[in-house]
Amino acid sequence: MPRPREFEPDAVLNAAMLRFWERGYRATSIEDLVTATGVKPGSLYSAFPGGKHALFLKSLERYSKLVVPEKLGELEASGASVAEIRGYFDGLVRDLLSPEGRQGCLLVNTAIERAAEDDEAAAVVRGHMARLERCMTHALENAVRRGQVRASLDCAGSARLLVATCQGLMVVGKANPDEALLRAIVDNAFTALA
Amino acid sequence: MPRPREFEPDAVLNAAMLRFWERGYRATSIEDLVTATGVKPGSLYSAFPGGKHALFLKSLERYSKLVVPEKLGELEASGASVAEIRGYFDGLVRDLLSPEGRQGCLLVNTAIERAAEDDEAAAVVRGHMARLERCMTHALENAVRRGQVRASLDCAGSARLLVATCQGLMVVGKANPDEALLRAIVDNAFTALA
Repeated sequence: MPRPREFEPDAVLNAAMLRFWERGYRATSIEDLVTATGVKPGSLYSAFPGGKHALFLKSLERYSKLVVPEKLGELEASGASVAEIRGYFDGLVRDLLSPEGRQGCLLVNTAIERAAEDDEAAAVVRGHMARLERCMTHALENAVRRGQVRASLDCAGSARLLVATCQGLMVVGKANPDEALLRAIVDNAFTALA
Repeated sequence: MPRPREFEPDAVLNAAMLRFWERGYRATSIEDLVTATGVKPGSLYSAFPGGKHALFLKSLERYSKLVVPEKLGELEASGASVAEIRGYFDGLVRDLLSPEGRQGCLLVNTAIERAAEDDEAAAVVRGHMARLERCMTHALENAVRRGQVRASLDCAGSARLLVATCQGLMVVGKANPDEALLRAIVDNAFTALA
């Protein structure tokens, strides 16, 4: 009969995810993860063969499954349109201006720190960007149908630009959480659609 | 009579800058800097009181002074206009698609890794973004005068959006150095100005 697990894998993954989110991949050591999760190194390795990197990839997946849907909110709904895109951007600005939000998005942080040298992490980030692009494209197509944006709008191309604008907003907001600046970026992105 | 220096400070700073650029701040140890610069810890501390953090700030300044002007190129010229903004974006895309360019921009990396917790580093990043914003505003004002963009364009606001677009392009390009994707982002940013 197998020994009962001495820890809850989801709770361990949450703790690891928060640690990577706060500090990044390279600067997080196995010792940090042992402290953060409260699980001994041997048990950590036996639960997550592949060690730190395996825990990192699982943390990214968990973030995509738990944190991202909360951020996307109504933007993932089939009836989403300009108001839902705007709501998503407003949420990003709100996060960037709040003390808790200043650690940013784990996937943006990962794109910058890891993507160029870690194909598996890059694939998770690309998956997230593709998901965001699909939401944006769909919402823009609805907006064209409803006459909320110009009929000639290239929805797919504009969605790609909006995804880049979100990522850029997070870079700017990290260095300069100035509300007027961030609102100017969002307002001008919307002017460009009208 | 003071002992002659046993190393060239600019060469040391270059080596430190490259190390921080490649690996980030947290993951670079004093031992790494000793290896990268070839200077003993005691001499490093006596040349750069404040140690790793002082070397980091000096590296950021050096990057702003040496690397940034090369990237900005003609965009800093007083006659710059739409073509120079386009040239700057095209250079970013070219960099992102080249193997050497995949470590990205030290200032964007720093915005993501450090800005929320390191006021001095954030100030250097903000200085860079303000410089880019000034260039963009000036080039857009020239473009309005020359009839290259719509007369009603909010140059200051559009410049802020273009700065965010540059940063976002670098996040997207790190995760997904796909030429068609990056060109679509740039093309749509320019369509929005016309």
